[in-house]
Amino acid sequence: MSESRKRILVVGGGAAGPKAASRARRLDPKADIKILEAGKSVSYAACGMPYYVSGAIRTSKQLVMRTADYFKQRLDIDVLLETAALSIDRSAGTVHCRDSEGREFPLPYDALVLATGARPFVPPLEGRDLNGVFKLKDIPDMLAIADYIKKEEPRRAAIIGAGLIGLEMAEAFKARGMSVTVVEMLDWPLPALLDEEMASMVTRALDGQGVRLLLSQRAQRFEGTQGGRVKRLITDSEAIDCDIALVSIGVRPETSLATEAGLQIGATRAIAVNEFLQTSDPAIYAGGDCVECKHLVTGKPVFVPLGSTANKQGRVIGTNVAGGRDTFPGIIGTAIAKVFDLAVARTGLTEREAAQAGFKVVSSIVSPTDVAEYYPGVSQVTLKLVADAENGRVLGAQCIGKAEVARRIDVVATAISCGMDVKALSSLDLAYAPPFSPSMDAVHDAANVVRNKMDGTAKTVSAQQLKKKMNGHPDLLMLDVRTNTEWRLSRIEHPNVQHTPMRDLALSGAEFCDGKEVVAFCDSSIRAYLAQKMLERKGCKDVKFLDGSLIVWPYKLYEPKE
Amino acid sequence: MSESRKRILVVGGGAAGPKAASRARRLDPKADIKILEAGKSVSYAACGMPYYVSGAIRTSKQLVMRTADYFKQRLDIDVLLETAALSIDRSAGTVHCRDSEGREFPLPYDALVLATGARPFVPPLEGRDLNGVFKLKDIPDMLAIADYIKKEEPRRAAIIGAGLIGLEMAEAFKARGMSVTVVEMLDWPLPALLDEEMASMVTRALDGQGVRLLLSQRAQRFEGTQGGRVKRLITDSEAIDCDIALVSIGVRPETSLATEAGLQIGATRAIAVNEFLQTSDPAIYAGGDCVECKHLVTGKPVFVPLGSTANKQGRVIGTNVAGGRDTFPGIIGTAIAKVFDLAVARTGLTEREAAQAGFKVVSSIVSPTDVAEYYPGVSQVTLKLVADAENGRVLGAQCIGKAEVARRIDVVATAISCGMDVKALSSLDLAYAPPFSPSMDAVHDAANVVRNKMDGTAKTVSAQQLKKKMNGHPDLLMLDVRTNTEWRLSRIEHPNVQHTPMRDLALSGAEFCDGKEVVAFCDSSIRAYLAQKMLERKGCKDVKFLDGSLIVWPYKLYEPKE
Repeated sequence: MSESRKRILVVGGGAAGPKAASRARRLDPKADIKILEAGKSVSYAACGMPYYVSGAIRTSKQLVMRTADYFKQRLDIDVLLETAALSIDRSAGTVHCRDSEGREFPLPYDALVLATGARPFVPPLEGRDLNGVFKLKDIPDMLAIADYIKKEEPRRAAIIGAGLIGLEMAEAFKARGMSVTVVEMLDWPLPALLDEEMASMVTRALDGQGVRLLLSQRAQRFEGTQGGRVKRLITDSEAIDCDIALVSIGVRPETSLATEAGLQIGATRAIAVNEFLQTSDPAIYAGGDCVECKHLVTGKPVFVPLGSTANKQGRVIGTNVAGGRDTFPGIIGTAIAKVFDLAVARTGLTEREAAQAGFKVVSSIVSPTDVAEYYPGVSQVTLKLVADAENGRVLGAQCIGKAEVARRIDVVATAISCGMDVKALSSLDLAYAPPFSPSMDAVHDAANVVRNKMDGTAKTVSAQQLKKKMNGHPDLLMLDVRTNTEWRLSRIEHPNVQHTPMRDLALSGAEFCDGKEVVAFCDSSIRAYLAQKMLERKGCKDVKFLDGSLIVWPYKLYEPKE
Repeated sequence: MSESRKRILVVGGGAAGPKAASRARRLDPKADIKILEAGKSVSYAACGMPYYVSGAIRTSKQLVMRTADYFKQRLDIDVLLETAALSIDRSAGTVHCRDSEGREFPLPYDALVLATGARPFVPPLEGRDLNGVFKLKDIPDMLAIADYIKKEEPRRAAIIGAGLIGLEMAEAFKARGMSVTVVEMLDWPLPALLDEEMASMVTRALDGQGVRLLLSQRAQRFEGTQGGRVKRLITDSEAIDCDIALVSIGVRPETSLATEAGLQIGATRAIAVNEFLQTSDPAIYAGGDCVECKHLVTGKPVFVPLGSTANKQGRVIGTNVAGGRDTFPGIIGTAIAKVFDLAVARTGLTEREAAQAGFKVVSSIVSPTDVAEYYPGVSQVTLKLVADAENGRVLGAQCIGKAEVARRIDVVATAISCGMDVKALSSLDLAYAPPFSPSMDAVHDAANVVRNKMDGTAKTVSAQQLKKKMNGHPDLLMLDVRTNTEWRLSRIEHPNVQHTPMRDLALSGAEFCDGKEVVAFCDSSIRAYLAQKMLERKGCKDVKFLDGSLIVWPYKLYEPKE
């Protein structure tokens, strides 16, 4: 054995497989390492595909990070393209393969790595085989879409699913000059990523970009032309004319090889692995989009396929198949997307997820400036922080803005990973200079608002709670403390709303509240909190402010036409 | 007592004082709160001053965050402008004051807050009182500089000190059309922030912007015209013609009030405070630029005046003077600066500081892309990570680039704050999508290189070590593995350097190394590490790569003129 070369066989040439192979090579100079890939390219950047369709990336070659030649020459790794893995014979320690010419043969392994990825889920909608109806899984899908756009010059696009891929592709189709309609079954966009009020910022942004977003609608079928081209998407309440359509309602792990080999499949229907990324057969490892991961906040298995996770897992597998002993602890559900000029990101649990997981939740929504408020080019960054009301432990965050959103999410992600509480988060010594951040960053602000809520200094209601109160509650005073200018541009139209700018509020007396329940709001809650404290000083007994104020108000605002 | 209003007196209207007063007001609606400020404005953004001088911020009013009227009307806080605190009578519980008209009077306190700030240290250089020689401490200084530039139209600026303020002002003077020379006593710019090889990126950037940087030179005196205007700065080796000069070699805490009152001054010569930010007199609190902080990595007191720390401390003090009990744990030395189009940041300890603090250090320098390598507008971000070689605990980081540098530093800052090691850092679930980051972020890369070094997979030498080896060491092969194009643009000119692109190296045989000690390098170490592993596979025994490669090579590169 000491003289023989270890045979490491990798199935799948996406992200995790090539990473595992490369890492194994660095640690074991002698091993026989092979990658099987059913497609024509290895090590391609699937996450970049929407940007090729949009035209931001000019050649598809840019998405192929490493060629088979590169693996051979630089790393002495054999890549077998257009070679499918048909089945695993675990007792023999072989994988049965078929190459592009139909030849079948077994390949032996000492360690096997399954990196078989995931595939888009396309429900059995009538008309889904029409020309112009696409999914986006791999380079051939991407090239087919680009080719169709070039040849058929579609002007109207319909997208089923307002998830990450759906919205990235909405932007891509827009960039190609099309009108775009997105149909989402659930009640807000990016439903797997965001809470409702945060998602309302995405809804407004899409509206501002001219994307038609149909929420709470279920796609029923496609209708085609006589020539077999898609011409209409029918939902449970509308008919949407379209020349091109994309189905992007999620992906399923590709587990057939693992299932047929009798390997354990997890509760999420992805391959179950231990912390060494071994399947139920210790000689077989699995990583990337085909496995489930442990969520480090809930401790439960989740299926969250992402290129970043795939790469980290690839490295761990590479170490372990080369005889080392590394672990992959799990994930916390961090994700980010560019939605036109907004960055939209989340980490940990949303408020809804945290409540579902059994936590008693306290949250805050702040919208401070991204850089010093006097620095040129300043914009706002909206951050929602979710914490455990019992002990202040940080559970999650969502962040939306035009500036450095990833920064705020990554700080919270790091804090969650080490079990930090809001007090520690508010004390973090983060990078500050006027071109980069206000002296108290959004992360500090959000943590301090949670602390204020936990100790009773700040009292808030959520948009959903306020919406419920608004109906038939004569003793509710909804107090808009913004300036006259802001009030003129947009406002909540409701009999209970009263507009009293901060300046006037400061001059008012104790009679102002008149025994009413007051909910103050402004654009971002900064003045609303000040108003709460000011009214309390004047003797008002029941004053709260609206969590996050109007920036994240998920209901209609009245915008007078000038 | 229960009926009486608590008297909270704050000395200093910069950042910490107003923050403490505002916070106290939120918690104690009845307290009598006063802020004494010797100058004419309260709550101004001192960190923004260089951007006013540069013209990026158009009116000085933008830097005044809150007026005295605002404090009165919104917060019921009295601001006494142009009122100096002359002395503290601790037994009487009063501060003796003098107002703008010379009237002296005592003000009583139940809780006193010292937020007296810091002042620039101006050494007793001959000629420092000449017209046109400035420091930059406060709004009057800033206005004086701007006024001088407007009236005198200086064309040549000399700056003593290549620290944060020095370099920010170099950019400001450049933006005003001046030629700029910066004189630094130590051997590299931003010496308090960066290690030498990282600072070399700043040196090159300043050179690229036409700023003349004179290192290892000591300013001796200024010479003036007959009219009393500065015309020359004399150092120990040069005479620099100038029409305006700035002395920015650091600040000293303003402690005279505290010292005279017999309060304890710390080892750093700033006011010593406990975690509640109480001075040695528990009725007297202190925060902001006049106090020292505990460094959370070394446990030692440090004096690092920053607006971000001042704001956090202000909040803690506000809570405590209002009867609460909050703590300020300390800092880790995070800092960031904009140096022309570069962001330059650090957190924790530099390698030098870590070694001085007694740590056995392992470090890495990586320069991956800031976003996916195929995404439009991609640039490089250079990150140095410093860890404890005994256990992998993260001790510090430095980061330089044109893109989201603060993000990477803030992640490491958060990791340091919870004692994370490089393994945990490399496993973090950070925000990934092509427009925001590569699938493995710079933080992951840097952590993995440290792990590779700790387990012996990667072997490196630092630039300083290699520089020493280069003299009279015939068996040293310095292997440049970059492409021909890169080689033609710039390179290390030295007899031991050999250029063999990766492509050719892959084809070479075992005889390549010929028993020599090989140090491979490229632009950023990615290929150099690959070369190390490739040569080891070919049987070479002694192969290392240059930490960080040429991006951070702190010595001269030969750049052939085309």
